[in-house]
Amino acid sequence: MKIFLGSLFFIGVTPKTGVTPISYCDMIEVMIGKKKVITKKSEDFSRWYTDVVQQAELADYAPVKGCIIFRPYGYALWEGIKKALDAKIKAMGVENAYFPLFIPQEFLQKEKEHVEGFAPELAVVTHGGGKKLEEPLIVRPTSETVMYAMFSKWIQSWRDLPLKINQWCNVVRWEKRTLPFIRTTEFLWQEGHTAHAEHKEALDQVHAAAQAYEEIFKDYLAIYGITGFKSNSEKFAGAAASLSYEALMPDGKALQSSTSHDLGQNFAKAFEITFQDQKGKNQYVWQTSWGLSTRAVGGLIMVHGDDNGLFFPPQIAPIQIIIVPIYGGDEEGGLVKQYVSELKSKLIEFRVKVDSREEYSPGWKFNEWELKGVPLRLEIGPREVKSQTVMAIRRDTGDKTSITTSELTEKVTMLLKTQQKDALERSRKFTEENTHLVDTYDQFKEIMSGPRGFIKAFWCENPGCEAKIKEETKATTRCLPLDAVEEKGKCVYCDEPATHRWLFAQAY
Amino acid sequence: MKIFLGSLFFIGVTPKTGVTPISYCDMIEVMIGKKKVITKKSEDFSRWYTDVVQQAELADYAPVKGCIIFRPYGYALWEGIKKALDAKIKAMGVENAYFPLFIPQEFLQKEKEHVEGFAPELAVVTHGGGKKLEEPLIVRPTSETVMYAMFSKWIQSWRDLPLKINQWCNVVRWEKRTLPFIRTTEFLWQEGHTAHAEHKEALDQVHAAAQAYEEIFKDYLAIYGITGFKSNSEKFAGAAASLSYEALMPDGKALQSSTSHDLGQNFAKAFEITFQDQKGKNQYVWQTSWGLSTRAVGGLIMVHGDDNGLFFPPQIAPIQIIIVPIYGGDEEGGLVKQYVSELKSKLIEFRVKVDSREEYSPGWKFNEWELKGVPLRLEIGPREVKSQTVMAIRRDTGDKTSITTSELTEKVTMLLKTQQKDALERSRKFTEENTHLVDTYDQFKEIMSGPRGFIKAFWCENPGCEAKIKEETKATTRCLPLDAVEEKGKCVYCDEPATHRWLFAQAY
Repeated sequence: MKIFLGSLFFIGVTPKTGVTPISYCDMIEVMIGKKKVITKKSEDFSRWYTDVVQQAELADYAPVKGCIIFRPYGYALWEGIKKALDAKIKAMGVENAYFPLFIPQEFLQKEKEHVEGFAPELAVVTHGGGKKLEEPLIVRPTSETVMYAMFSKWIQSWRDLPLKINQWCNVVRWEKRTLPFIRTTEFLWQEGHTAHAEHKEALDQVHAAAQAYEEIFKDYLAIYGITGFKSNSEKFAGAAASLSYEALMPDGKALQSSTSHDLGQNFAKAFEITFQDQKGKNQYVWQTSWGLSTRAVGGLIMVHGDDNGLFFPPQIAPIQIIIVPIYGGDEEGGLVKQYVSELKSKLIEFRVKVDSREEYSPGWKFNEWELKGVPLRLEIGPREVKSQTVMAIRRDTGDKTSITTSELTEKVTMLLKTQQKDALERSRKFTEENTHLVDTYDQFKEIMSGPRGFIKAFWCENPGCEAKIKEETKATTRCLPLDAVEEKGKCVYCDEPATHRWLFAQAY
Repeated sequence: MKIFLGSLFFIGVTPKTGVTPISYCDMIEVMIGKKKVITKKSEDFSRWYTDVVQQAELADYAPVKGCIIFRPYGYALWEGIKKALDAKIKAMGVENAYFPLFIPQEFLQKEKEHVEGFAPELAVVTHGGGKKLEEPLIVRPTSETVMYAMFSKWIQSWRDLPLKINQWCNVVRWEKRTLPFIRTTEFLWQEGHTAHAEHKEALDQVHAAAQAYEEIFKDYLAIYGITGFKSNSEKFAGAAASLSYEALMPDGKALQSSTSHDLGQNFAKAFEITFQDQKGKNQYVWQTSWGLSTRAVGGLIMVHGDDNGLFFPPQIAPIQIIIVPIYGGDEEGGLVKQYVSELKSKLIEFRVKVDSREEYSPGWKFNEWELKGVPLRLEIGPREVKSQTVMAIRRDTGDKTSITTSELTEKVTMLLKTQQKDALERSRKFTEENTHLVDTYDQFKEIMSGPRGFIKAFWCENPGCEAKIKEETKATTRCLPLDAVEEKGKCVYCDEPATHRWLFAQAY
């Protein structure tokens, strides 16, 4: 025990650690390995977020400006998303490939809007192999240009269409203000790129990608959101139209969580991507691109969790079940160990971990795995061995249930399913309760200076009004929801006629 | 048919295509969709390689110097390797994470040998977000330095050890001479990095990684090779010792296919990675790093295949079975279609594709899938429907077997297993037949100017002799095989006493 305390003391005081400033009492508790301390979510959401990201070892700040390290527990979330989404992408008949990290500067300049949109965010390689390069290379901020230069070579005939390619990769955008996962200079994503003979087919692909994303958010991450069209000023640089999934975070700000673009023939014309149709006529292709990034992990962290730390919906949780053995005396301890190992073998269809570390108390472990958001905890001590039961504790509600060994799998399945369902329902309810139907600009301003959230308001679709609203309230148009109906209304800013209620919010 | 010909003619003559120069007769056949043409492997190995890479659509040359596009069929090979290796990495208790692409220049300079080894190959970012950076950033050539800066923060106590991290990522090394997959400016790889309390434990990890690689090469890629220690001049820049897997390619040159490094405490000292041991004493950690890259795909292409194109061992083949329906008349065609779909549903445990394109003849398809290296072809026509059989053709031997429907799964399994086994055996036999036990320098020179291959020769371990041999024969020490026995010998170059036979070869 002496060595143990000494070692922890060392952790507490060494200048090498990145522990956030905490009170003296908390420090003692940290030192004796009692608990990790995070700001309460209910008191200061943004500090809670950065605390929990570090304390739960999801990420750490990198020694490179605006970059993070995706630590194993955080990276496992991305691996989970990748696995689920990759299956959906392949099911759409899209094939994975890999294109170069570097893009010749001239390529990026071929599509006017595209280069204007990305120019301020570029990282530039000027030297390679000890020499100055003749032409600087851009570190890809997205891969339309380098991919479409190849599409132009590969596509010749209608037989080569549709061409459907996806890549999982890193991209770099030089960001001024960064936040772990949500906005980082380098991030990971997938980018799908397709070329079609017909515009309708391309549009179907855009919607199919948006649908796949919505399923990932709802079925896996339990994040409710709204899919809709971006306004002209908010759409992707170079796109004809963009769809996005907009989710409301607990602080009332929106997170644009994925996008799917109808590129029309803009890039086809810039890169001369033509095909000979079945009548022998040369035509430009119709293109789409769509992406989902590690930003989704940021949304997952924000939406769920509470004052005690994270909560991961079971479908995405890297560890679904944490087993904490409570050893009694030596003899009892042996029985507990054996019982735990029997139970674990019954739970092979789940992602289970047994925390058998002897240097930490059960209470410390409870806090630790609550902080880390494991949805289900099984406590197993001598009492449980005797009664052939386990005590199951839900992370979201704290509810305890005693489960008999014989019905273990069935009950555990149910508890996980329920938590998954409840998490999405909480997210949906929160979004609905914080979505305001607004008809006057005064009310608009009041909400945006107070509780925030989503506002559904008529907008005349004049970019001038949109810019003024942004300037005065920090709220932007998030999207025109796919299910928006045509109505007779007046623009919330200028009173001119408007046909649809757009979704507004302040955004990350 | 007219449109079809027209379209293919278009492919044939457009300046946009990258078709290699071929004879007029071949051109006609290409134009009428009869076959793709590649140089014969038996006539010109290196042209065969670049031909087959492009014609089988494994990769294409990128518009960035020294980079390639990993096209879907080529990327699928990497995905297969990733899946198999990732499972082995996780089974070693190593967790995936992700570290930044960019490394501050000062980090790279901390370990003297490391920076000297990599300095000539670096790509440098000097501008970001429109401004000149205060300190240039290096695009990672490997991630020791950026990872170990974090290890220094994360590791405090013996409780934090071992720390075992892996990442799948892209790296950049500015190469002068490039070859698709084998040596490209940007490539994909995994890099494992571990830190341990004891040197012995680190050594065990180095050997475990080398063992995992050997299993990937032998069990999946069917590439026989030799694992052994690199000489001092050939080891990784910054390592105490390096293990590599050396495989012999058909042209008698060696491919270093993966490496595993014992880093000793070199980086621990450069990055101050210390831990308090159980007695309360501060110690430097012992480290390892180990990597396998997309170069393995290059080895896979080279080792197998023949004059007609690729051959992929079934364990790694993206498509294991290609079904080519041979439609007769309309009525027969319907029956064939139905029969094919029934058979396909019986083969769900395999990676199967049905080539039902009507614009290509069965003969064209046979050539196409031979070129693409699919190990097993099933031909199904009206005759097979009638007899309730299929005709199975092995890609490696061309052997034909008629299989009855009732024993389909069993026979297909056997044919694939046999091809897997035979492929490794061919590779092993080729390596043995081209490994020469050499005792005189004249013989050494003769072999290296003629058939090449591996040479096992005594070497006094003086770097001077190694350098002279390289200068005069282009052969380098590949490794000291793990199973090399101590003997009394004389250095093949200088006649001084030597204790072991080293493996020499010209290398990629």
